[in-house]
Amino acid sequence: MTSQPSIADENRDKLLSEPGVYGSFVALKVDKTWWLQTTENRATSLDSLSKVFETQTHGVAIDLYLLRGLTENVDFLIRVHSRNLLDNQKFILKVMNSRLGAYLDNVVTINGLTKSAIYLPSFLPELKKIMSQPSDPGPSRNPYVIVIPSLKDPTWWLAEKTDRTEMMREHTAATVEALPKVKRKLYHSTGLGEYDFIAYFETSRLDVFNELVIGLKKVTENRHNEKTTPVLLGTVISEKELLEFLK
Amino acid sequence: MTSQPSIADENRDKLLSEPGVYGSFVALKVDKTWWLQTTENRATSLDSLSKVFETQTHGVAIDLYLLRGLTENVDFLIRVHSRNLLDNQKFILKVMNSRLGAYLDNVVTINGLTKSAIYLPSFLPELKKIMSQPSDPGPSRNPYVIVIPSLKDPTWWLAEKTDRTEMMREHTAATVEALPKVKRKLYHSTGLGEYDFIAYFETSRLDVFNELVIGLKKVTENRHNEKTTPVLLGTVISEKELLEFLK
Amino acid sequence: MTSQPSIADENRDKLLSEPGVYGSFVALKVDKTWWLQTTENRATSLDSLSKVFETQTHGVAIDLYLLRGLTENVDFLIRVHSRNLLDNQKFILKVMNSRLGAYLDNVVTINGLTKSAIYLPSFLPELKKIMSQPSDPGPSRNPYVIVIPSLKDPTWWLAEKTDRTEMMREHTAATVEALPKVKRKLYHSTGLGEYDFIAYFETSRLDVFNELVIGLKKVTENRHNEKTTPVLLGTVISEKELLEFLK
Amino acid sequence: MTSQPSIADENRDKLLSEPGVYGSFVALKVDKTWWLQTTENRATSLDSLSKVFETQTHGVAIDLYLLRGLTENVDFLIRVHSRNLLDNQKFILKVMNSRLGAYLDNVVTINGLTKSAIYLPSFLPELKKIMSQPSDPGPSRNPYVIVIPSLKDPTWWLAEKTDRTEMMREHTAATVEALPKVKRKLYHSTGLGEYDFIAYFETSRLDVFNELVIGLKKVTENRHNEKTTPVLLGTVISEKELLEFLK
Amino acid sequence: MTSQPSIADENRDKLLSEPGVYGSFVALKVDKTWWLQTTENRATSLDSLSKVFETQTHGVAIDLYLLRGLTENVDFLIRVHSRNLLDNQKFILKVMNSRLGAYLDNVVTINGLTKSAIYLPSFLPELKKIMSQPSDPGPSRNPYVIVIPSLKDPTWWLAEKTDRTEMMREHTAATVEALPKVKRKLYHSTGLGEYDFIAYFETSRLDVFNELVIGLKKVTENRHNEKTTPVLLGTVISEKELLEFLK
Repeated sequence: MTSQPSIADENRDKLLSEPGVYGSFVALKVDKTWWLQTTENRATSLDSLSKVFETQTHGVAIDLYLLRGLTENVDFLIRVHSRNLLDNQKFILKVMNSRLGAYLDNVVTINGLTKSAIYLPSFLPELKKIMSQPSDPGPSRNPYVIVIPSLKDPTWWLAEKTDRTEMMREHTAATVEALPKVKRKLYHSTGLGEYDFIAYFETSRLDVFNELVIGLKKVTENRHNEKTTPVLLGTVISEKELLEFLK
Repeated sequence: MTSQPSIADENRDKLLSEPGVYGSFVALKVDKTWWLQTTENRATSLDSLSKVFETQTHGVAIDLYLLRGLTENVDFLIRVHSRNLLDNQKFILKVMNSRLGAYLDNVVTINGLTKSAIYLPSFLPELKKIMSQPSDPGPSRNPYVIVIPSLKDPTWWLAEKTDRTEMMREHTAATVEALPKVKRKLYHSTGLGEYDFIAYFETSRLDVFNELVIGLKKVTENRHNEKTTPVLLGTVISEKELLEFLK
Repeated sequence: MTSQPSIADENRDKLLSEPGVYGSFVALKVDKTWWLQTTENRATSLDSLSKVFETQTHGVAIDLYLLRGLTENVDFLIRVHSRNLLDNQKFILKVMNSRLGAYLDNVVTINGLTKSAIYLPSFLPELKKIMSQPSDPGPSRNPYVIVIPSLKDPTWWLAEKTDRTEMMREHTAATVEALPKVKRKLYHSTGLGEYDFIAYFETSRLDVFNELVIGLKKVTENRHNEKTTPVLLGTVISEKELLEFLK
Repeated sequence: MTSQPSIADENRDKLLSEPGVYGSFVALKVDKTWWLQTTENRATSLDSLSKVFETQTHGVAIDLYLLRGLTENVDFLIRVHSRNLLDNQKFILKVMNSRLGAYLDNVVTINGLTKSAIYLPSFLPELKKIMSQPSDPGPSRNPYVIVIPSLKDPTWWLAEKTDRTEMMREHTAATVEALPKVKRKLYHSTGLGEYDFIAYFETSRLDVFNELVIGLKKVTENRHNEKTTPVLLGTVISEKELLEFLK
Repeated sequence: MTSQPSIADENRDKLLSEPGVYGSFVALKVDKTWWLQTTENRATSLDSLSKVFETQTHGVAIDLYLLRGLTENVDFLIRVHSRNLLDNQKFILKVMNSRLGAYLDNVVTINGLTKSAIYLPSFLPELKKIMSQPSDPGPSRNPYVIVIPSLKDPTWWLAEKTDRTEMMREHTAATVEALPKVKRKLYHSTGLGEYDFIAYFETSRLDVFNELVIGLKKVTENRHNEKTTPVLLGTVISEKELLEFLK
């Protein structure tokens, strides 16, 4: 999807596709008093934020999303990828330490780790082949993003691996139809917070996505989700669009 | 219902009746410090809000509701309809970016999608006919609106479609008596947030509505609701009435 | 109980005893900054509140309660009765639009509807007779009030009416002993918010009331309560006492 | 325990030992802006609080506890005893109406009533004798206090009294070993809020107290606790120490 | 781990390894207005915090962690160890009473007690030997820390000790592989708050830690966890790094 903003191009493709990468989802709320500052003050503060983006270190990939208007009590989302979670923390610290930071509340933070597919190798070749096709969310300028964390129940974790594999095969099969229109990415979160997984979706077809999630609710694996909130729904934006929003 | 405010008349009827339309329910709380501003400051800020309503883009239909006094911790509700959720977001952003926006908290945001009826085609002709009658909530100037989101349990989604159809037939039959006095509209929300459905009601007869919901609690389908809060109860208002309230 | 404050005397008795009346319970928290205003500013603002009480429309009955010190995070409670919920909303709006309103948070709002007794007609004559005796909470100047909302589980609503009647008979019998000392009033709330019922109690004997509620917990009907919070505990006050408190 | 602060000595012993007394637990949070006031302003405000303690009415016993540092989101706790809950409310109102009150948030309020022992009379003489021994929490200057409210499930209340007595006998026996080091007091709260009981503990031996509560978790009665939060943990302080803390 | 900050070196090793020590975990949020103070004001306030660290009493060991960027709604964590919980409270009070304190919210506070191993003595010699090996989280400068409280269900506490021992043996065996890379410490919390245990982890290998927690979710003991939130994830920092962060 060429419209995807990419602040740090170097290593970006690898960070977004390889296992062993840490992803942090940090949803921020802008304090109302921000909008009562003078235009000059806001501009100065945004310069300081702009510098954070310009001077970021190598090996960190940043994505930005506008949540305001689509998700309650929160304004924008930063997704950070790097090979050390400490580098994710450092980037968020820089944002919070910018002059805008004094107006930001860190409402949601969820961290995860990418891994090689666990159940896929056991699937039938046909399903494996389908799953290896790239998805194309289409030409929309600001595609939608949905982030859904999930916590599995103890019964899930105590199930035999063959049973979990069968449930994941059924789960995966339910996604086949929507796959071409919905880009998906999975993070493992157990121990890094209260969730086990973070599912990240990009699409310009929310109707297809709605059908996809209905499909995922109709499989047995869904019985083992204890918590799947908060859902973050927003639109992909570039750094420039974020600065425009905050202006 | 002729008293219904309609800021954007063009396409409004289609947006409010056709499938494939996105509805956003955005409940806002006005910060207490708003009421401590000078009358002049408030008037200036409301001019800026007024302009948002005047200059709105085509293809977006707006409805306004006063929640204050009937629902806790929130003041008014905006319902936005359009064929692209992005346009709903853009409208809310404009409201939030108006000078009033610096005094608004976005307490509740729920998004849904209208679809063609799923279970209705399987119902008996008699029930289908009844369901196709328009309802008439009566001549009240500010009819009541009630918004109730719902999350279904996994057992609902894993049930056979024939079983779900039978449960929905029973559910629908329970609404027949109240139907003439209560206007209803359904949105599908799975994947767009934490709910599966948003039920929207308009009526000038809350006693009939109370009986309607009691009826809906007495059918089997009710066993599959995991969460049905927050309930938003308010009254339909026009743009002018909203500005009057905020003055 | 003669000590009961009655701001709107006209129609008051009927509004408090007949079916078809809407009751709104609005619990408000006074912002701490209120107490940092000058005495003059507070007096001016209270004049504006005083006018709200003086100029209220016909057909609305108001009761006031002091919650501060007995219920956390909230200061006082307004109970409004009228035949149209819209009139309840209008009264609360007037309070919120008074100059005090800029210091008020609407923490709890629960609305209900009075109806004719549903199960009572099926009870034995003896129990019916006992239930028709008026209660006398005694000569206390500021009797206690307790408001307890309740949400029933689906099993309750799906039970046969005969079973519900038997459970309500057992429930009612458990109240007989306390009845002379505790005044009770029931509101139906299904569909108007997240609860099914609002139980309102007045008494000067909290020890008797404690035994009453223990009795109500010991009957089968209690198994069908899904949620019975927040409980609001306070004391009946007059308009004058409210103004004194806020001075 | 001689170190116990006792602001109102008159009647104190009776209020703390007899049935028919109302106890209110009011946990307060001091707004951060308090600490930004000038030393003079704080001193003036504390004088006003000091007067509340000096002029308190007869028949009210007050205890103070410092929660800050041991319990989150709250700073100190006031326990009030009197024979009329109204007098407890009046005392808290005086504290809140002092000049400090404009910086206080009433985060937790739980009210209860002391009664004669319900199950004890049915216990064997040996256990009864043990239970009648006074406990001695030891010579610590600021002993620890722990307040744990509890809500019982419907099964508890619907059990036969003989079954509840047996469960309470097992519960009581589990406390025997810790009894000499932990002072206990029980309040009945049903109907006065969302809980059924408030358990109050004083000890200078938290290790013994930890073993005591583990013992109480290992008996059948524990299966019937639906909610046992918030737990308030703090240390007993005198009025002088409270004023010192707020200085 | 030599990088561990150690403000109070005296007795530190004993406090961190012996039973009978109280550990307090206090997570603090810095109010946004802190960052709007002048650099001079912040420096002065930090001097006052610095003095708290310098003048701390003997017998108290302090550790500091930066949570901002990795855990939502909170900025840094203080872990305090001493033989009397009162001394932990006193240290936190000193921090809160420093000039920085007026900008701090105490969002999370959990207290626990170290004890001799309860189940370990019953394990087979081989497992006991493995568990006695020290772990080495590696040479990272700011290793990660994870704090996970847990509340056990009544069934856990009512189980026979032999059954709990077998479940703990299975639990312990699941940790063997990760042990060399993850340092662990356990606190007992029953009665001191709403949890039964606090598990504290230090590691520079979050991928190994993720596998460790997955392993712990796959054993029967996991069925008896009723609540395991909030999870606090951060990085170990020195006093100097904390002051740098707040500058």
